[in-house]
Amino acid sequence: MKDRFSVIYHLFGDEADCRARAADICLEQTVELGEHLVPNGFIKDEILGRIEDFNSIGPDQYETRISYLTETTALELTQFLNLVFGNISIKKGIRLHDVLPSDALLRIFKGPRFGIEGLRKQLNVKDKPLLCSALKPMGLSPDCLAGLAYQFALGGVDLIKDDHGLSNQAFCPFKDRVKACVAAVEKANSRTGNTGVYIPNITAPASRILERAYTAKELGAGGVMLLPGLSGFDAMKTLSMDDDFNLPILSHPSFLGSMVLSEENGLSHGFLFGKLQRLAGADASIYPNYGGRFGFSKSQCEEINANCKHKIGHVKPIFPMPGGGMSMDRVDGMRKVYGNDVLFLVGGGLMDYSRDIVHNVRHFLSIIGRN
Amino acid sequence: MKDRFSVIYHLFGDEADCRARAADICLEQTVELGEHLVPNGFIKDEILGRIEDFNSIGPDQYETRISYLTETTALELTQFLNLVFGNISIKKGIRLHDVLPSDALLRIFKGPRFGIEGLRKQLNVKDKPLLCSALKPMGLSPDCLAGLAYQFALGGVDLIKDDHGLSNQAFCPFKDRVKACVAAVEKANSRTGNTGVYIPNITAPASRILERAYTAKELGAGGVMLLPGLSGFDAMKTLSMDDDFNLPILSHPSFLGSMVLSEENGLSHGFLFGKLQRLAGADASIYPNYGGRFGFSKSQCEEINANCKHKIGHVKPIFPMPGGGMSMDRVDGMRKVYGNDVLFLVGGGLMDYSRDIVHNVRHFLSIIGRN
Repeated sequence: MKDRFSVIYHLFGDEADCRARAADICLEQTVELGEHLVPNGFIKDEILGRIEDFNSIGPDQYETRISYLTETTALELTQFLNLVFGNISIKKGIRLHDVLPSDALLRIFKGPRFGIEGLRKQLNVKDKPLLCSALKPMGLSPDCLAGLAYQFALGGVDLIKDDHGLSNQAFCPFKDRVKACVAAVEKANSRTGNTGVYIPNITAPASRILERAYTAKELGAGGVMLLPGLSGFDAMKTLSMDDDFNLPILSHPSFLGSMVLSEENGLSHGFLFGKLQRLAGADASIYPNYGGRFGFSKSQCEEINANCKHKIGHVKPIFPMPGGGMSMDRVDGMRKVYGNDVLFLVGGGLMDYSRDIVHNVRHFLSIIGRN
Repeated sequence: MKDRFSVIYHLFGDEADCRARAADICLEQTVELGEHLVPNGFIKDEILGRIEDFNSIGPDQYETRISYLTETTALELTQFLNLVFGNISIKKGIRLHDVLPSDALLRIFKGPRFGIEGLRKQLNVKDKPLLCSALKPMGLSPDCLAGLAYQFALGGVDLIKDDHGLSNQAFCPFKDRVKACVAAVEKANSRTGNTGVYIPNITAPASRILERAYTAKELGAGGVMLLPGLSGFDAMKTLSMDDDFNLPILSHPSFLGSMVLSEENGLSHGFLFGKLQRLAGADASIYPNYGGRFGFSKSQCEEINANCKHKIGHVKPIFPMPGGGMSMDRVDGMRKVYGNDVLFLVGGGLMDYSRDIVHNVRHFLSIIGRN
């Protein structure tokens, strides 16, 4: 197989420095040897990364496109990430901006099972934005959380998810919580005819993730949430490809922040919270909205939005899911950025607006044109 | 259970800013609600993070110690990491400096199975430093890598590991490689009486890690290497606690670099490459040595070294395993930093010194007083 795919890196420093760094990436990410030790033939000609482009994109800022032999990924997500950013994650002044997959590389990635279209079908919502809220705070009992889930569902929230800190604590065991919240949402749906679903957090020790996923499904959950920063991205991919499981997956950004915070290192916002999430099978990608209590900029959120939606072969578009300190008065501006294909994650904001949660939800839905 | 444990964070900004940030951590990492929405009683009194200390440690730099209810970790490594750094990984100016586990928290963590003492026993090396080398470059066939393994073993390398980019590529399938390298090392040992072992990289898609670990064991590998930045830390912990598996684990830092590169965000070097590795069951922690081709400083490496070795309840000390562009002339200085309890990872350096690899290995061993 001679197929190659490309990765775009942004490099920071003067030109000589950045040219040297581009050459170093080609070695470091493949053969991990000094150039004089690289064997001629197959290894020098094909295994070694290859600089395809090198351009200035600003003062002391360069962009290089480096191609790799697709076969060096072993057609595994783990080795793919290792190849494109493993060791150079430890070197300053290199940021992975984007990956341009070849058709052969895309064969590794089935992508999300549902994506935007599938999730809309599942929830029976055409065109308009979707709404998700989070059950919190940690410390409430399963019954108290279920009470909250009931009110969210009664108001018409589409996805009622666990706060990401809910796991399997003694004061709120996973199974009890799922049972209680599923029952509460079903009860509300039977009154309203809505199609809202409950989404538990199934992040768990490695050997327990599938067990929680299947428990959730058997107990009637409408999807699951996973934290790939803690489980690894491949745990999400594995689950998304499991035909027996067959439920939507929300991806949460916990523990991943350090990868984007410094603009001269790490991964771009668009790749980490957009493209990689799609490749790894998320149906929606949660991330902090601009202007909330986290520091993402509007343009970083636009980059994420674009990467959730633009064409990548057969890999379906997914919902950008901005959250983190969202209040109702910001919805208009956000619709301009995200359009209708957006999944609003509103937590405290739905508890805060007035003391009547059902009313708050209905008010929010009316703002986004849903009733 | 009322047990609490503490986390030390470093905060960057002026005092008012940092005090606000400390208070925010207490909310963000537990209840994820504005303070006015936190219910009185159990949740406000116990679930909420609690500021135990707050001190200036430099200009615009503060240290705070925050305690959490141990039960909020659900006694899971994944939720523990989520609790101590999940969402705040996305907020600038907060660095997790250290975790001070309570006895109750330590019950989650069995720690490494072998550690320094166990690995020494396994390899029959008392007191002196150990030596590891890496099979590379990617692109060589199993037989060629085995030829290299034979020379390393003949010279007396203790641990002969895969380069971290070797996975299950078509040009070098995992099983063929393990078979060939195990046989080569055994053949060399039968000539020399040495006790060197081969250590394959078992990093793989989530559902295949255990399969590769057991294949490695059945085929005669003397341990395995895992990349927790890609597999998740809990995959390593799970394997380290598996009584049937029962082999040493080397942890490799691939993909983790962005978590330490910015000094005002992420995790401290000592926590990420020292303490966390121990808690998650690594017997040795690979990281870039100071002065090599990566940018770690001497004091960062000293911090890692200390965290690999200082007392943490029943959790055994592990080998710091500095590598990354090491050459023979640096060994003396490194022994002053690391003492005798160090596992030198020398890759290219053992191929580069002269064309005779067996000679190079013997020369290196003589420098560290091994023959």
